[in-house]
Amino acid sequence: MAGDWGRGAWPDRIEARLAVDPQHTIKAVVVVHNETSTGVTSRIGDIRRAMNRAAHPALLIVDTISSLGSIEVRHDEWEVDVTVTGSQKGLMLPPGLGFNAVSEKAMRATRTARLPRAYWDWEEIFKANQNGFFPYTPASNLVMALREALLMLQEEGLSNVFRRHERHAEATRAAVRAWGLQIVCEEPLEYSNSLTAVFTPDGHNADRLRETILDRFDMSLGTGLGQLSSKVFRIGHLGAFNDLMLIGTLGGVEMGLRAAGVPHRAGGVSAALNSLEPTGRPAETSLAR
Amino acid sequence: MAGDWGRGAWPDRIEARLAVDPQHTIKAVVVVHNETSTGVTSRIGDIRRAMNRAAHPALLIVDTISSLGSIEVRHDEWEVDVTVTGSQKGLMLPPGLGFNAVSEKAMRATRTARLPRAYWDWEEIFKANQNGFFPYTPASNLVMALREALLMLQEEGLSNVFRRHERHAEATRAAVRAWGLQIVCEEPLEYSNSLTAVFTPDGHNADRLRETILDRFDMSLGTGLGQLSSKVFRIGHLGAFNDLMLIGTLGGVEMGLRAAGVPHRAGGVSAALNSLEPTGRPAETSLAR
Amino acid sequence: MAGDWGRGAWPDRIEARLAVDPQHTIKAVVVVHNETSTGVTSRIGDIRRAMNRAAHPALLIVDTISSLGSIEVRHDEWEVDVTVTGSQKGLMLPPGLGFNAVSEKAMRATRTARLPRAYWDWEEIFKANQNGFFPYTPASNLVMALREALLMLQEEGLSNVFRRHERHAEATRAAVRAWGLQIVCEEPLEYSNSLTAVFTPDGHNADRLRETILDRFDMSLGTGLGQLSSKVFRIGHLGAFNDLMLIGTLGGVEMGLRAAGVPHRAGGVSAALNSLEPTGRPAETSLAR
Amino acid sequence: MAGDWGRGAWPDRIEARLAVDPQHTIKAVVVVHNETSTGVTSRIGDIRRAMNRAAHPALLIVDTISSLGSIEVRHDEWEVDVTVTGSQKGLMLPPGLGFNAVSEKAMRATRTARLPRAYWDWEEIFKANQNGFFPYTPASNLVMALREALLMLQEEGLSNVFRRHERHAEATRAAVRAWGLQIVCEEPLEYSNSLTAVFTPDGHNADRLRETILDRFDMSLGTGLGQLSSKVFRIGHLGAFNDLMLIGTLGGVEMGLRAAGVPHRAGGVSAALNSLEPTGRPAETSLAR
Repeated sequence: MAGDWGRGAWPDRIEARLAVDPQHTIKAVVVVHNETSTGVTSRIGDIRRAMNRAAHPALLIVDTISSLGSIEVRHDEWEVDVTVTGSQKGLMLPPGLGFNAVSEKAMRATRTARLPRAYWDWEEIFKANQNGFFPYTPASNLVMALREALLMLQEEGLSNVFRRHERHAEATRAAVRAWGLQIVCEEPLEYSNSLTAVFTPDGHNADRLRETILDRFDMSLGTGLGQLSSKVFRIGHLGAFNDLMLIGTLGGVEMGLRAAGVPHRAGGVSAALNSLEPTGRPAETSLAR
Repeated sequence: MAGDWGRGAWPDRIEARLAVDPQHTIKAVVVVHNETSTGVTSRIGDIRRAMNRAAHPALLIVDTISSLGSIEVRHDEWEVDVTVTGSQKGLMLPPGLGFNAVSEKAMRATRTARLPRAYWDWEEIFKANQNGFFPYTPASNLVMALREALLMLQEEGLSNVFRRHERHAEATRAAVRAWGLQIVCEEPLEYSNSLTAVFTPDGHNADRLRETILDRFDMSLGTGLGQLSSKVFRIGHLGAFNDLMLIGTLGGVEMGLRAAGVPHRAGGVSAALNSLEPTGRPAETSLAR
Repeated sequence: MAGDWGRGAWPDRIEARLAVDPQHTIKAVVVVHNETSTGVTSRIGDIRRAMNRAAHPALLIVDTISSLGSIEVRHDEWEVDVTVTGSQKGLMLPPGLGFNAVSEKAMRATRTARLPRAYWDWEEIFKANQNGFFPYTPASNLVMALREALLMLQEEGLSNVFRRHERHAEATRAAVRAWGLQIVCEEPLEYSNSLTAVFTPDGHNADRLRETILDRFDMSLGTGLGQLSSKVFRIGHLGAFNDLMLIGTLGGVEMGLRAAGVPHRAGGVSAALNSLEPTGRPAETSLAR
Repeated sequence: MAGDWGRGAWPDRIEARLAVDPQHTIKAVVVVHNETSTGVTSRIGDIRRAMNRAAHPALLIVDTISSLGSIEVRHDEWEVDVTVTGSQKGLMLPPGLGFNAVSEKAMRATRTARLPRAYWDWEEIFKANQNGFFPYTPASNLVMALREALLMLQEEGLSNVFRRHERHAEATRAAVRAWGLQIVCEEPLEYSNSLTAVFTPDGHNADRLRETILDRFDMSLGTGLGQLSSKVFRIGHLGAFNDLMLIGTLGGVEMGLRAAGVPHRAGGVSAALNSLEPTGRPAETSLAR
């Protein structure tokens, strides 16, 4: 189902599409929770409600690779059938582990599915997992690292983790607006808290900007993909990340914009500082030495 | 010899003092090259020239602990007799290794010195070093790390390393001036390129500011020592350090000043960005979308 | 095709089976090169020759997971169509990378194959690999570790690596014979050089022996699988492994046999020492103090 | 006070020497608890009793560098005045930390001592230690590692740690005797539990043996020092060390003796296995398959 790159999945369009499928030929609604290439977060709860209004039995499958551990995911509350994630984003590990959280309904579906499977088959894994094992050689070092990462998330507290990502995302958007640049995501309700994709002004190649920043500041920003290629650069702010790392990151972008001659206003980093630390009287008027 | 905390060692005062020592009771002039507690760099070349003018045979002993590897040290050119340094600053290692570079003259002096010595005695070390050994158990892991650190310095090029520290120090001072705060070092020729000590305004405790910054941003700044206690905080910018780390550091200071209610003007980080990346047309006037 | 657990795949049986398939319904001969559960190495070159005699177009697919990097694998010479391996054995890395070496013939086969594929599809990977990329997020830390592992293998020299594994396997078998125990592999031409599976005497549970050894010496031996369950323990001797580690390993087995009351003769470790270091006059007769 | 290299410090000779010092010109009795170059452990308790019998006020200073954490040290019970140790042996850390445990009496002595001191002066350290600090830059990474090492020792239990070293030392001596070689330490009551020094037979250079072992098995044994130079090799068995590492070590020595053509009997490793795991019926007679 085609969509707008500046928006998340449309709950009403999904509802409308399911409504014209009385034969239930549609087996699953598959949604990316947080779209890494655009910085748009789809509203899964609304999508679930739309599916329920359509009273359609399709499974709801949600890719949470760049959200889980950074942005709230409610597998049970949203009645998700399969939540998919990976180790390399909010779980702060190297790439190498994939995770599936599976509903009873999805489990029943897999038992009647006719796609030939071996390594991907859930049955073997469920059986072995009962006893704490894997049916095949597991990436045991990552499993041990996962335990540590989960302890870190618990220690900070999940709600604090989500709030931290929200603060960093708000500060990043404040910087982008101060630079006078445009955020790819068009709907504030769908702003991603784990990354922000930004348009360079017309006629200014985003990949050249990214190269300048990599070359001068040893910082690698994400590239625009598909129809956004060379028009967009992406600022990631997820995982093991703190206020000062964000300020350093935004400082690298601001200096890069200048070095690459991309038209912008100065002051993005200052706006981010204001966004991150709004307490106290305004600094400008308090000077009285 | 007492001095001013805002200044380095005075070459002319040293010369005057040596001139009234015809009996040569003074055995050595001992100078800290870069004073870590104040951010002042003494001009060793000028001190050597003053000693030579006094035609006094005292040894010149220089502590370069927080300069070597970050700020230029010219052991031979400055005719230093003993250059002392450690592993934990510009050499980017954990603490644990001390280094002495020793002139022929100092070597002769040690042979007639009457201070009882064992572990600190140079003779044993010189003898064992001839064959690449140590007379006692060396911190072998640090010796191996040192090899790697020296390769890193060579790869970047020493002149680039020094220039990097100079750029970071200039940007830091630009931030301090923008905040409207006062740098401890009073003489621009003696500004340290490896750290900057800054006065908080009268009536504002620097240690409370440091605590606020540690608490909110997990960043530990150096404290004022001795007569500067509670009046000064110190920003380190030496060793394995890059532009974005500096911007993050200064961002933490600026947010901390605000959070702690220390009177200041905003804009320190912006000033540092301008100082670090001055190329291109001024950002403010180039916006034409 | 059922086989004997003490033997490798039979070339003549494969040839006979292919000979009665004139319709070519058999698409592939799939062989495990080195069977990890039994310590038996199949003779892939002989199997290829048998397939060629049968003039059958089936693909030859070889699992080299516990051989590649430890035991010689000749992908081209043996005309293997797909060589499969993993990172976690002879390549000395954590688990997490899988490798396929694919012939032109296998590539053609994949283009006409009708099994639905996505992640496992070779086309996408081949395309991205041309430019040094992966179509999906790669386990980049393991890719970097792989480069280091390959440098280590090159530094030692592959023929030395194979000879080392051969020496260790011979010494292990010498120990097993000295203990009076039976090796699972029945055919000396098919002895594995990367692990040795050993029967405990009738009535003596191999898993209890393994537990004793784990408990006393913190050494985890492989268990018997399937029909060999509780009858067999496995001694691994592959990867980053040297003579002294082997002696320690065999010492743990010998002490474990004693501690668990498993009937055996002492002297296994001594036999291994003799096997590893046969130079010089026999030690027993050379004593002349 | 000269001694025999095969023996520890003689309590009665110390007593006799102190008895003829009525003026108390002797300020301290300095003893190495465990002599690393010979594998001899002096009996500090007996020495203290001898000193008490002589009623001499000399301080008792004990170097426990290669004993503390491996062999029991009773600072209080033995009334030691200064116990000296380092991080790099039984404490299982890299070299870099030195430790002094100091009695009240030693503390009083340091206050009247006239040796000029700065870095080594206890007063400054005692003062800073009260608040958990160091007067100078500490090797903070080693301090954190020390905490972990102490937790490891506590987890195993100190008496188990000492018993483990004792078992390893006994097994090593069993091996040496089986080889028909001579242990440097002449008195069983003074055998070291952290290392064993061994004579090569007359006419056989111990350093050539060590080179052979290093070259073939990548294992570095200690060299003979002073009057034992080229006559002795040393087998260390202290710190983070287990049964299988010891068997591997002794296997390397036994193969090295053979490779270097040093006259010996085979069977040292077997003797060590018997020593380490004496439980169960003798293996030789229990075989009944």
